[in-house]
Amino acid sequence: MDATDPLYAQVAAHYRQAITAGTMPPGSRMPSVRTLMGLHRVSLSTALQACRLLESQGLLQARQRAGYFVRPPRPTRLARAAEPRQTQADPARFVGVHERISEILTRGIAARPEVNLSGACAHPSLYPTRALALHGQRLLRRRPEILGTQPDPQGLLGLRQALSRLALNAQIQLDPSQLVITHGCTEALSVALRAVTRPGDAVAVESPTYYGLLQLLESLGLRALEIPTSPHTGLSVEALEAAAAQEPRLKAVVVVPNLQNPLGAVMPDAAKQALLASCEARDLALIEDDTYALLCDTPQRAIKSWDTTGRVIFCSSLHKTLAPGMRVGWIAAGRWQPRVEILKYAQSRPNEMLGQAILAEFLAGGQIERHLRALRAKLATQREQMAEALSDELPTGTRLSMPPGGPSLWVELPEGLSSLALFDAALEKGVRLGPGLMYSNSDRFDNFIRINAGNPMDEAQRRAIATLGALCASMLRR
Amino acid sequence: MDATDPLYAQVAAHYRQAITAGTMPPGSRMPSVRTLMGLHRVSLSTALQACRLLESQGLLQARQRAGYFVRPPRPTRLARAAEPRQTQADPARFVGVHERISEILTRGIAARPEVNLSGACAHPSLYPTRALALHGQRLLRRRPEILGTQPDPQGLLGLRQALSRLALNAQIQLDPSQLVITHGCTEALSVALRAVTRPGDAVAVESPTYYGLLQLLESLGLRALEIPTSPHTGLSVEALEAAAAQEPRLKAVVVVPNLQNPLGAVMPDAAKQALLASCEARDLALIEDDTYALLCDTPQRAIKSWDTTGRVIFCSSLHKTLAPGMRVGWIAAGRWQPRVEILKYAQSRPNEMLGQAILAEFLAGGQIERHLRALRAKLATQREQMAEALSDELPTGTRLSMPPGGPSLWVELPEGLSSLALFDAALEKGVRLGPGLMYSNSDRFDNFIRINAGNPMDEAQRRAIATLGALCASMLRR
Ligand SMILES: Cc1ncc(COP(=O)(O)O)c(C=O)c1O
Ligand SMILES: Cc1ncc(COP(=O)(O)O)c(C=O)c1O
Repeated sequence: MDATDPLYAQVAAHYRQAITAGTMPPGSRMPSVRTLMGLHRVSLSTALQACRLLESQGLLQARQRAGYFVRPPRPTRLARAAEPRQTQADPARFVGVHERISEILTRGIAARPEVNLSGACAHPSLYPTRALALHGQRLLRRRPEILGTQPDPQGLLGLRQALSRLALNAQIQLDPSQLVITHGCTEALSVALRAVTRPGDAVAVESPTYYGLLQLLESLGLRALEIPTSPHTGLSVEALEAAAAQEPRLKAVVVVPNLQNPLGAVMPDAAKQALLASCEARDLALIEDDTYALLCDTPQRAIKSWDTTGRVIFCSSLHKTLAPGMRVGWIAAGRWQPRVEILKYAQSRPNEMLGQAILAEFLAGGQIERHLRALRAKLATQREQMAEALSDELPTGTRLSMPPGGPSLWVELPEGLSSLALFDAALEKGVRLGPGLMYSNSDRFDNFIRINAGNPMDEAQRRAIATLGALCASMLRR
Repeated sequence: MDATDPLYAQVAAHYRQAITAGTMPPGSRMPSVRTLMGLHRVSLSTALQACRLLESQGLLQARQRAGYFVRPPRPTRLARAAEPRQTQADPARFVGVHERISEILTRGIAARPEVNLSGACAHPSLYPTRALALHGQRLLRRRPEILGTQPDPQGLLGLRQALSRLALNAQIQLDPSQLVITHGCTEALSVALRAVTRPGDAVAVESPTYYGLLQLLESLGLRALEIPTSPHTGLSVEALEAAAAQEPRLKAVVVVPNLQNPLGAVMPDAAKQALLASCEARDLALIEDDTYALLCDTPQRAIKSWDTTGRVIFCSSLHKTLAPGMRVGWIAAGRWQPRVEILKYAQSRPNEMLGQAILAEFLAGGQIERHLRALRAKLATQREQMAEALSDELPTGTRLSMPPGGPSLWVELPEGLSSLALFDAALEKGVRLGPGLMYSNSDRFDNFIRINAGNPMDEAQRRAIATLGALCASMLRR
């Protein structure tokens, strides 16, 4: 919690922590608004706002005339996600996973499913597109010449300044000259990897991991070394250490420490520091993918915030947090900054001005924090609704842990169910999901699926989940 | 000349050809407007428009009451550009030219020169930025959700359709499914090279060549094989053949057949076909960079237009022709299309919607041809004015051939003058130019400079050229 947050958010954060930690168990009474006013020396409206925020986050429920109570977790028949069975890294692999991934993606798109449960992003209506569009209209009216002039090599200074300020949330201190604007986090990862590896090298990644990263590694001729990763605490630093000792061409680790995709794991601060220390000791580049961090229910530190030697290459994006229709990401590459600037320039030249200027104006307006709070709250509710639907419909033996933020749910189906078969059968019925096979070079996750809770729950989605349940049941009977 | 061009343009083209070919020598009288009306069965206003177009292109001059005459070439003391002295390719090189280039670029930008004669683009005022901005405003007003939704993998269909139509000008037949939208021609070249090479391979390029291509090759770990290139007829296919026989790891040729940068050369159709045949025979990928083609004074065929086997990877951009402030290019990769789609997707994901939608609407409006005609005419005048200033100011022994289109002039200074020394001295005086050293891994072009004629001629530029002249003179005296 940040002292610059509005008072009501600070008060809410205090109780959120108590609730999450179990200090205030489900069913217990929240101090009355009057009590809150006295305890925190805040106004009536501030105290009320704090309670409403916690309510919108699904932590409190109001009972007629009796005040607010800590809400019991929705009943779910689903067991907590299991820790990874394997404790060792896979040998570094390069198995042509790209074909599998792009085949699944192409089929998923071509089928034009009625309900899309794949993807890892919120619904467009949850982003301030209208406000962004107004900034765009004004810019184009006042400064049409930005469509005719070439942008700064590193990106628009005003945007870099705003992003440095945003990075303070993750406790990172950067000055704008240390950033380069990129075409999304994807391009940031692409130049980061090119800066620190040569084809044939190995790169450690979480397992399961974001399929786009596997595609990128393959397209660069790199081998992925998959490290066991907990659905709760993220990458196993121990397993990484053991694997690194075996792989002389290991050059870098790519990690999503906050809201890992697909697991939703958040690494504890101690693990983040241990990972950094391990990379220092072994002279590995640490590429930190920050894509989802701002969607954490409670703010989390970035690994970059502990970096004193320029070893962490921080890659981020506004894709999931602010504008899924824009391609604006950024990179702060520490000791590799000069090389990264060269590679970005050679690979695609600077991003165009228009999008950067729109985002710079929006961020300067200071509405981002309010937007993010609303987005987090909506995602929390949607995750819970989706988990409820899953627990109502999927067969016994299904496992799921609720991630502390973000749009994705990572669901383990009972042993023997193939997510690829389920993908096919569901697509036939107009439902698209993310089969576990996409997230690893191995077949280890074939009984997992990733479900997007980014869209507001509606009847169509409920029916789609029921369809999945019926398909699973019939596949188990066979 | 295209039968779909307006009548007056067809009439003008007829006489342009006659003038260029020498059938109508300088000083000869243009048929009177009345004669034109009869000869071509056109209206008075069409005949007049045709004459005015030729006048704006610097081919005719009006004499009071006497009608139009073929204009004598402006007196220039400059000799025609020399053919390359070397006839053999350089051995494939990888000499870290990037540092030299980026050092020159960085110094050039940091000096904030009063007059910038480097760059290879027209002035923003010569592009329809206001019309583009109006399309943008309307789009953002009517469809703000495009800032929140993710674009098509290959790029916006409407834009790909418009670009296929535009490609008809270069006599290329493509359907929209064969295109991928990229972040400029730079990214198109980047994925093209990645599709057909592995690090350590050699790629044949023109010598001199666009420095961005050298940077790209170096950043991909590729070796540049520099092929002698004529300032008039472009790449020497003979020299390429000889070099290819010596270089087993040669995988591709990158060529700018129409308005080569920096030479301004246009390859004759026979040379284009010979190059394609040679690439077929040797199984080389032919990467065609189309960046400036639409700026040719008379339309030219693309090599891609003869490609029947999918061997040509066609890379283009709207940067120089329509919107220098936007990052929209495209690639049609023939037999490598699936791989190129994968690489573009993995490297940076699809371009964002907004810019694509703006350009699609503009192109659908059909104003592009009129814009291009005006842009070509203005560039022709500016090139001539710039050449005149250069011939007035630069020392005897300076050589220059006027390119048949585009913004750039490639100037050979008298032997012994170093363009790098001139670059330094000129920067001191607030003038930036492109020193020849940037365009090759060799030092062969150190007595060349590239001068941008993209900006309307003004006093500041005239003074800047005079400054260059004075500096050259004093350097020669030493
Ligand atoms: C972990 C992770 N990194 C990066 C990306 C891509 O980000 P961008 O769209 O900014 O390129 C995604 C998108 O799904 C992701 O999940
Ligand atoms: C020959 C050539 N190719 C490509 C480019 C870059 O094009 P874009 O800006 O579309 O990436 C340039 C720009 O100077 C160029 O001269």
